[in-house]
Amino acid sequence: MSNKKVWPGSTQLLPIPAVLVGCGNGREMKYNLLTVAWTGIVCSDPAMLSVSIRPERFSYALIKRSGEFTVNMPSRKIASALDYCGVVSGRDHDKFNECSLTARPGETVQAPIVAECPVSLECRVSKTLELGSHVMFVADILAVQVDESLISNKGALDVRQADPIAYAHGGYYGIGDFIGGFGFSVKKKDGAR
Amino acid sequence: MSNKKVWPGSTQLLPIPAVLVGCGNGREMKYNLLTVAWTGIVCSDPAMLSVSIRPERFSYALIKRSGEFTVNMPSRKIASALDYCGVVSGRDHDKFNECSLTARPGETVQAPIVAECPVSLECRVSKTLELGSHVMFVADILAVQVDESLISNKGALDVRQADPIAYAHGGYYGIGDFIGGFGFSVKKKDGAR
Repeated sequence: MSNKKVWPGSTQLLPIPAVLVGCGNGREMKYNLLTVAWTGIVCSDPAMLSVSIRPERFSYALIKRSGEFTVNMPSRKIASALDYCGVVSGRDHDKFNECSLTARPGETVQAPIVAECPVSLECRVSKTLELGSHVMFVADILAVQVDESLISNKGALDVRQADPIAYAHGGYYGIGDFIGGFGFSVKKKDGAR
Repeated sequence: MSNKKVWPGSTQLLPIPAVLVGCGNGREMKYNLLTVAWTGIVCSDPAMLSVSIRPERFSYALIKRSGEFTVNMPSRKIASALDYCGVVSGRDHDKFNECSLTARPGETVQAPIVAECPVSLECRVSKTLELGSHVMFVADILAVQVDESLISNKGALDVRQADPIAYAHGGYYGIGDFIGGFGFSVKKKDGAR
Protein backbone atom coordinates (compact mmCIF):
# COMPACT_ATOMS: atom_id res chain seq x y z
CA MET A 1 0.00 0.00 0.00
CA SER A 2 1.93 3.03 -1.18
CA ASN A 3 1.35 6.72 -0.53
CA LYS A 4 -1.31 8.43 -2.58
CA LYS A 5 -0.97 11.33 -4.92
CA VAL A 6 -4.14 13.42 -5.25
CA TRP A 7 -4.93 14.63 -8.76
CA PRO A 8 -7.80 16.90 -9.80
CA GLY A 9 -10.91 15.10 -11.02
CA SER A 10 -10.46 13.43 -14.42
CA THR A 11 -11.83 10.53 -16.43
CA GLN A 12 -9.48 7.88 -14.95
CA LEU A 13 -11.91 4.98 -14.90
CA LEU A 14 -10.18 1.83 -16.14
CA PRO A 15 -10.47 -0.37 -18.04
CA ILE A 16 -13.42 0.83 -20.13
CA PRO A 17 -14.81 -0.55 -23.39
CA ALA A 18 -13.51 0.72 -26.74
CA VAL A 19 -16.34 0.30 -29.23
CA LEU A 20 -17.52 1.37 -32.66
CA VAL A 21 -20.86 3.15 -32.59
CA GLY A 22 -22.80 2.70 -35.85
CA CYS A 23 -25.39 5.28 -36.93
CA GLY A 24 -27.31 6.60 -39.93
CA ASN A 25 -29.74 4.58 -42.04
CA GLY A 26 -27.95 4.19 -45.37
CA ARG A 27 -30.45 6.45 -47.14
CA GLU A 28 -30.81 10.19 -46.43
CA MET A 29 -28.54 9.65 -43.42
CA LYS A 30 -25.41 7.90 -44.65
CA TYR A 31 -23.97 5.15 -42.50
CA ASN A 32 -21.25 6.34 -40.17
CA LEU A 33 -19.00 4.97 -37.43
CA LEU A 34 -17.67 6.66 -34.32
CA THR A 35 -15.16 5.34 -31.78
CA VAL A 36 -16.44 5.63 -28.25
CA ALA A 37 -15.05 4.76 -24.82
CA TRP A 38 -17.56 6.85 -22.87
CA THR A 39 -20.11 4.03 -22.68
CA GLY A 40 -21.37 1.70 -19.96
CA ILE A 41 -24.27 -0.46 -18.82
CA VAL A 42 -26.80 1.54 -16.80
CA CYS A 43 -29.68 -0.90 -16.18
CA SER A 44 -30.28 -4.68 -16.28
CA ASP A 45 -34.06 -4.76 -16.68
CA PRO A 46 -34.71 -3.32 -19.14
CA ALA A 47 -31.21 -3.78 -20.54
CA MET A 48 -29.86 -0.28 -21.11
CA LEU A 49 -26.56 1.42 -21.80
CA SER A 50 -25.30 4.96 -22.14
CA VAL A 51 -23.14 6.45 -24.85
CA SER A 52 -21.78 9.99 -24.50
CA ILE A 53 -20.86 12.00 -27.59
CA ARG A 54 -19.68 15.56 -28.18
CA PRO A 55 -22.45 17.47 -29.98
CA GLU A 56 -19.97 18.75 -32.58
CA ARG A 57 -19.30 15.21 -33.81
CA PHE A 58 -20.89 14.28 -37.14
CA SER A 59 -22.51 11.19 -35.58
CA TYR A 60 -24.26 13.23 -32.89
CA ALA A 61 -26.82 14.73 -35.27
CA LEU A 62 -27.47 11.33 -36.89
CA ILE A 63 -28.25 9.72 -33.53
CA LYS A 64 -30.22 12.72 -32.32
CA ARG A 65 -32.35 12.63 -35.46
CA SER A 66 -32.83 8.87 -35.83
CA GLY A 67 -32.90 7.95 -32.14
CA GLU A 68 -30.99 4.79 -33.02
CA PHE A 69 -27.45 3.47 -32.97
CA THR A 70 -25.48 0.27 -32.59
CA VAL A 71 -22.57 -0.54 -30.28
CA ASN A 72 -20.06 -2.87 -31.92
CA MET A 73 -17.22 -4.52 -30.04
CA PRO A 74 -14.21 -4.99 -32.32
CA SER A 75 -11.71 -7.77 -31.86
CA ARG A 76 -8.02 -7.03 -31.89
CA LYS A 77 -7.89 -7.90 -35.61
CA ILE A 78 -9.58 -4.59 -36.39
CA ALA A 79 -7.99 -2.48 -33.64
CA SER A 80 -6.50 -0.19 -36.26
CA ALA A 81 -9.96 0.53 -37.71
CA LEU A 82 -11.26 1.13 -34.19
CA ASP A 83 -8.64 3.79 -33.65
CA TYR A 84 -9.00 5.34 -37.11
CA CYS A 85 -12.76 5.86 -36.69
CA GLY A 86 -12.02 8.00 -33.65
CA VAL A 87 -9.50 10.19 -35.45
CA VAL A 88 -11.25 11.23 -38.67
CA SER A 89 -14.74 12.68 -39.18
CA GLY A 90 -17.66 11.21 -41.07
CA ARG A 91 -18.18 14.67 -42.58
CA ASP A 92 -15.37 13.99 -45.06
CA HIS A 93 -14.62 10.27 -44.70
CA ASP A 94 -16.54 7.12 -45.58
CA LYS A 95 -15.20 5.14 -42.65
CA PHE A 96 -16.85 1.80 -43.53
CA ASN A 97 -15.24 1.92 -46.94
CA GLU A 98 -11.83 3.21 -45.86
CA CYS A 99 -11.58 0.57 -43.12
CA SER A 100 -12.97 -2.26 -45.31
CA LEU A 101 -15.77 -2.82 -42.82
CA THR A 102 -19.19 -4.16 -43.78
CA ALA A 103 -22.39 -2.33 -42.78
CA ARG A 104 -25.45 -4.52 -42.25
CA PRO A 105 -28.82 -3.11 -41.14
CA GLY A 106 -29.77 -4.15 -37.64
CA GLU A 107 -32.63 -6.55 -36.95
CA THR A 108 -34.51 -4.00 -34.83
CA VAL A 109 -32.97 -0.68 -35.87
CA GLN A 110 -31.98 0.92 -39.15
CA ALA A 111 -28.54 1.83 -37.85
CA PRO A 112 -25.85 -0.48 -39.23
CA ILE A 113 -23.98 -3.14 -37.33
CA VAL A 114 -20.35 -3.80 -38.23
CA ALA A 115 -20.35 -7.35 -39.58
CA GLU A 116 -16.67 -7.85 -38.68
CA CYS A 117 -17.32 -7.18 -34.98
CA PRO A 118 -17.99 -10.37 -32.98
CA VAL A 119 -20.69 -8.75 -30.84
CA SER A 120 -23.06 -5.89 -31.66
CA LEU A 121 -25.82 -4.28 -29.62
CA GLU A 122 -28.82 -2.61 -31.26
CA CYS A 123 -29.97 0.42 -29.30
CA ARG A 124 -32.83 2.92 -29.24
CA VAL A 125 -32.46 6.20 -27.35
CA SER A 126 -34.85 6.71 -24.46
CA LYS A 127 -33.30 9.71 -22.69
CA THR A 128 -30.86 12.46 -23.64
CA LEU A 129 -28.90 14.42 -21.03
CA GLU A 130 -26.73 17.45 -21.76
CA LEU A 131 -23.86 17.20 -19.28
CA GLY A 132 -21.18 19.61 -20.55
CA SER A 133 -18.65 18.68 -23.23
CA HIS A 134 -20.72 15.56 -23.92
CA VAL A 135 -24.37 14.64 -24.39
CA MET A 136 -25.34 11.31 -22.84
CA PHE A 137 -27.72 9.10 -24.79
CA VAL A 138 -29.38 6.54 -22.52
CA ALA A 139 -30.71 3.73 -24.69
CA ASP A 140 -32.56 0.44 -24.54
CA ILE A 141 -30.60 -2.54 -25.87
CA LEU A 142 -33.13 -4.15 -28.19
CA ALA A 143 -31.08 -6.99 -29.65
CA VAL A 144 -27.61 -8.54 -29.54
CA GLN A 145 -25.93 -9.96 -32.64
CA VAL A 146 -23.15 -12.45 -31.96
CA ASP A 147 -20.88 -14.42 -34.27
CA GLU A 148 -22.23 -17.97 -34.26
CA SER A 149 -18.67 -19.28 -34.10
CA LEU A 150 -18.25 -17.70 -30.64
CA ILE A 151 -21.22 -19.41 -29.04
CA SER A 152 -20.54 -22.58 -27.06
CA ASN A 153 -22.76 -25.67 -26.98
CA LYS A 154 -24.21 -24.31 -23.76
CA GLY A 155 -25.16 -21.07 -25.48
CA ALA A 156 -22.51 -18.93 -23.76
CA LEU A 157 -20.33 -16.37 -25.47
CA ASP A 158 -16.60 -17.16 -25.67
CA VAL A 159 -15.17 -13.89 -24.36
CA ARG A 160 -11.53 -14.80 -24.97
CA GLN A 161 -12.25 -15.60 -28.59
CA ALA A 162 -14.31 -12.42 -29.01
CA ASP A 163 -11.03 -10.73 -27.99
CA PRO A 164 -12.61 -7.35 -27.15
CA ILE A 165 -10.57 -4.18 -26.67
CA ALA A 166 -10.32 -2.11 -23.52
CA TYR A 167 -9.30 1.52 -23.21
CA ALA A 168 -7.30 2.86 -20.29
CA HIS A 169 -5.50 6.16 -19.81
CA GLY A 170 -5.11 6.89 -23.53
CA GLY A 171 -4.21 3.40 -24.72
CA TYR A 172 -5.89 0.30 -26.14
CA TYR A 173 -5.38 -3.06 -24.44
CA GLY A 174 -6.39 -6.64 -25.10
CA ILE A 175 -8.32 -8.61 -22.53
CA GLY A 176 -6.11 -10.61 -20.16
CA ASP A 177 -6.46 -13.95 -18.48
CA PHE A 178 -9.60 -15.20 -16.77
CA ILE A 179 -9.54 -14.56 -13.01
CA GLY A 180 -12.82 -16.15 -11.96
CA GLY A 181 -16.56 -16.14 -12.47
CA PHE A 182 -18.94 -13.98 -10.42
CA GLY A 183 -19.13 -15.54 -6.93
CA PHE A 184 -15.76 -17.32 -7.12
CA SER A 185 -14.62 -15.88 -3.77
CA VAL A 186 -17.47 -17.57 -1.93
CA LYS A 187 -17.14 -20.85 -3.78
CA LYS A 188 -13.48 -20.97 -2.85
CA LYS A 189 -14.31 -20.40 0.81
CA ASP A 190 -16.97 -23.09 0.67
CA GLY A 191 -14.49 -25.51 -0.83
CA ALA A 192 -11.96 -24.80 1.93
CA ARG A 193 -14.31 -25.66 4.75
CA MET B 1 -16.81 -13.04 -40.70
CA SER B 2 -19.17 -15.74 -39.48
CA ASN B 3 -22.95 -15.87 -39.48
CA LYS B 4 -24.73 -13.97 -36.76
CA LYS B 5 -27.04 -15.25 -34.11
CA VAL B 6 -29.60 -12.70 -32.91
CA TRP B 7 -30.26 -12.70 -29.16
CA PRO B 8 -32.82 -10.59 -27.29
CA GLY B 9 -31.42 -7.37 -25.81
CA SER B 10 -29.11 -7.95 -22.84
CA THR B 11 -26.21 -6.30 -21.06
CA GLN B 12 -23.47 -7.77 -23.30
CA LEU B 13 -21.14 -4.80 -23.35
CA LEU B 14 -17.55 -5.98 -22.92
CA PRO B 15 -15.15 -5.49 -21.34
CA ILE B 16 -16.47 -3.20 -18.60
CA PRO B 17 -14.82 -2.04 -15.37
CA ALA B 18 -15.20 -4.09 -12.16
CA VAL B 19 -14.87 -1.63 -9.29
CA LEU B 20 -15.50 -1.22 -5.59
CA VAL B 21 -17.86 1.63 -4.78
CA GLY B 22 -17.21 3.11 -1.34
CA CYS B 23 -19.98 4.90 0.56
CA GLY B 24 -21.07 6.03 4.02
CA ASN B 25 -19.19 8.50 6.20
CA GLY B 26 -17.89 6.36 9.06
CA ARG B 27 -20.21 8.01 11.58
CA GLU B 28 -24.01 7.66 11.50
CA MET B 29 -23.62 6.04 8.09
CA LYS B 30 -21.11 3.23 8.46
CA TYR B 31 -18.58 2.74 5.70
CA ASN B 32 -19.64 0.20 3.11
CA LEU B 33 -18.39 -1.28 -0.15
CA LEU B 34 -20.32 -2.45 -3.17
CA THR B 35 -19.05 -4.22 -6.27
CA VAL B 36 -20.23 -2.53 -9.46
CA ALA B 37 -19.72 -3.18 -13.14
CA TRP B 38 -22.56 -0.93 -14.29
CA THR B 39 -20.36 2.17 -14.44
CA GLY B 40 -18.83 4.30 -17.18
CA ILE B 41 -17.51 7.72 -18.07
CA VAL B 42 -20.28 10.03 -19.30
CA CYS B 43 -18.59 13.43 -19.74
CA SER B 44 -15.03 14.80 -20.09
CA ASP B 45 -15.58 18.42 -19.03
CA PRO B 46 -16.64 18.38 -16.29
CA ALA B 47 -15.29 14.88 -15.65
CA MET B 48 -18.32 12.74 -14.83
CA LEU B 49 -19.20 9.08 -14.50
CA SER B 50 -22.32 7.06 -13.87
CA VAL B 51 -22.87 4.25 -11.41
CA SER B 52 -26.09 2.23 -11.49
CA ILE B 53 -27.32 0.44 -8.36
CA ARG B 54 -30.42 -1.55 -7.46
CA PRO B 55 -32.47 0.46 -4.91
CA GLU B 56 -32.76 -2.62 -2.66
CA ARG B 57 -28.99 -2.67 -2.11
CA PHE B 58 -27.79 -1.42 1.27
CA SER B 59 -25.40 1.04 -0.40
CA TYR B 60 -28.17 2.66 -2.39
CA ALA B 61 -29.68 4.49 0.60
CA LEU B 62 -26.22 5.60 1.78
CA ILE B 63 -25.43 7.20 -1.57
CA LYS B 64 -28.92 8.63 -1.97
CA ARG B 65 -28.65 10.24 1.46
CA SER B 66 -25.04 11.47 1.37
CA GLY B 67 -24.83 12.28 -2.36
CA GLU B 68 -21.26 10.99 -2.31
CA PHE B 69 -19.32 7.87 -3.18
CA THR B 70 -15.93 6.71 -4.39
CA VAL B 71 -15.03 4.42 -7.27
CA ASN B 72 -12.01 2.25 -6.46
CA MET B 73 -10.23 0.15 -9.04
CA PRO B 74 -8.79 -2.99 -7.46
CA SER B 75 -5.73 -4.74 -8.76
CA ARG B 76 -5.73 -8.49 -9.29
CA LYS B 77 -4.21 -8.97 -5.83
CA ILE B 78 -7.58 -8.16 -4.29
CA ALA B 79 -9.81 -9.74 -6.93
CA SER B 80 -11.27 -12.06 -4.31
CA ALA B 81 -12.35 -9.08 -2.17
CA LEU B 82 -13.81 -7.44 -5.26
CA ASP B 83 -15.98 -10.47 -5.88
CA TYR B 84 -16.90 -10.96 -2.23
CA CYS B 85 -18.20 -7.38 -1.87
CA GLY B 86 -20.69 -8.12 -4.66
CA VAL B 87 -21.99 -11.30 -3.05
CA VAL B 88 -22.75 -10.29 0.56
CA SER B 89 -24.72 -7.32 1.91
CA GLY B 90 -23.50 -4.45 4.08
CA ARG B 91 -26.65 -4.93 6.13
CA ASP B 92 -25.03 -7.85 7.94
CA HIS B 93 -21.37 -7.72 6.91
CA ASP B 94 -18.51 -5.31 7.63
CA LYS B 95 -16.88 -5.76 4.26
CA PHE B 96 -13.83 -3.57 4.92
CA ASN B 97 -13.01 -5.65 7.96
CA GLU B 98 -13.81 -9.07 6.49
CA CYS B 99 -11.72 -8.35 3.39
CA SER B 100 -8.85 -6.70 5.34
CA LEU B 101 -9.28 -3.51 3.35
CA THR B 102 -8.45 -0.05 4.70
CA ALA B 103 -10.99 2.78 4.58
CA ARG B 104 -9.55 6.29 4.32
CA PRO B 105 -11.73 9.39 4.04
CA GLY B 106 -11.57 11.04 0.64
CA GLU B 107 -9.91 14.42 0.13
CA THR B 108 -13.10 16.02 -1.19
CA VAL B 109 -15.84 13.67 0.03
CA GLN B 110 -16.60 11.89 3.28
CA ALA B 111 -17.06 8.56 1.52
CA PRO B 112 -14.08 6.25 2.02
CA ILE B 113 -11.50 5.31 -0.55
CA VAL B 114 -10.03 1.81 -0.42
CA ALA B 115 -6.35 2.38 0.36
CA GLU B 116 -5.34 -0.95 -1.25
CA CYS B 117 -6.78 0.08 -4.63
CA PRO B 118 -4.19 1.70 -6.93
CA VAL B 119 -6.66 4.28 -8.29
CA SER B 120 -9.71 5.84 -6.62
CA LEU B 121 -12.15 8.45 -7.88
CA GLU B 122 -14.02 10.74 -5.49
CA CYS B 123 -17.52 11.49 -6.74
CA ARG B 124 -20.48 13.73 -5.93
CA VAL B 125 -23.92 12.93 -7.33
CA SER B 126 -25.39 15.55 -9.64
CA LYS B 127 -28.31 13.68 -11.20
CA THR B 128 -30.34 10.59 -10.31
CA LEU B 129 -32.33 8.65 -12.92
CA GLU B 130 -34.72 5.81 -12.16
CA LEU B 131 -34.40 3.45 -15.11
CA GLY B 132 -35.99 0.15 -14.03
CA SER B 133 -34.13 -2.47 -12.00
CA HIS B 134 -31.38 0.10 -11.42
CA VAL B 135 -31.10 3.74 -10.44
CA MET B 136 -28.35 5.63 -12.24
CA PHE B 137 -26.29 8.11 -10.26
CA VAL B 138 -24.55 10.61 -12.54
CA ALA B 139 -21.71 12.17 -10.60
CA ASP B 140 -18.90 14.70 -10.90
CA ILE B 141 -15.41 13.24 -10.39
CA LEU B 142 -13.90 15.70 -7.92
CA ALA B 143 -10.50 14.11 -7.29
CA VAL B 144 -8.38 11.12 -8.25
CA GLN B 145 -6.13 9.34 -5.76
CA VAL B 146 -3.33 7.28 -7.28
CA ASP B 147 -0.60 5.17 -5.74
CA GLU B 148 2.57 7.25 -6.04
CA SER B 149 4.48 4.11 -7.01
CA LEU B 150 2.41 3.88 -10.22
CA ILE B 151 3.19 7.36 -11.51
CA SER B 152 6.04 7.65 -14.00
CA ASN B 153 8.59 10.47 -14.15
CA LYS B 154 6.43 12.06 -16.81
CA GLY B 155 3.44 12.02 -14.48
CA ALA B 156 1.55 9.28 -16.32
CA LEU B 157 -0.22 6.36 -14.68
CA ASP B 158 1.29 2.91 -15.29
CA VAL B 159 -1.83 1.01 -16.34
CA ARG B 160 -0.15 -2.40 -16.55
CA GLN B 161 1.15 -2.07 -13.02
CA ALA B 162 -2.23 -0.82 -11.75
CA ASP B 163 -3.44 -4.19 -13.10
CA PRO B 164 -7.14 -3.27 -13.12
CA ILE B 165 -9.90 -5.84 -13.49
CA ALA B 166 -12.45 -6.07 -16.29
CA TYR B 167 -15.81 -7.79 -16.23
CA ALA B 168 -17.25 -9.56 -19.25
CA HIS B 169 -20.19 -11.95 -19.55
CA GLY B 170 -20.16 -13.04 -15.89
CA GLY B 171 -16.40 -13.32 -15.42
CA TYR B 172 -13.47 -11.24 -14.19
CA TYR B 173 -10.43 -10.76 -16.43
CA GLY B 174 -7.04 -9.13 -16.14
CA ILE B 175 -5.98 -6.46 -18.57
CA GLY B 176 -4.06 -7.81 -21.57
CA ASP B 177 -1.19 -6.50 -23.64
CA PHE B 178 -0.88 -2.95 -24.92
CA ILE B 179 -2.17 -2.60 -28.48
CA GLY B 180 -1.46 1.07 -29.15
CA GLY B 181 -2.09 4.60 -28.00
CA PHE B 182 -4.97 6.74 -29.24
CA GLY B 183 -4.14 7.77 -32.81
CA PHE B 184 -1.77 4.87 -33.50
CA SER B 185 -3.55 3.94 -36.75
CA VAL B 186 -2.80 7.32 -38.28
CA LYS B 187 0.77 7.46 -37.04
CA LYS B 188 1.36 4.06 -38.65
CA LYS B 189 -0.02 5.33 -41.95
CA ASP B 190 2.13 8.45 -41.74
CA GLY B 191 5.18 6.31 -41.11
CA ALA B 192 4.46 4.20 -44.19
CA ARG B 193 4.33 7.14 -46.56
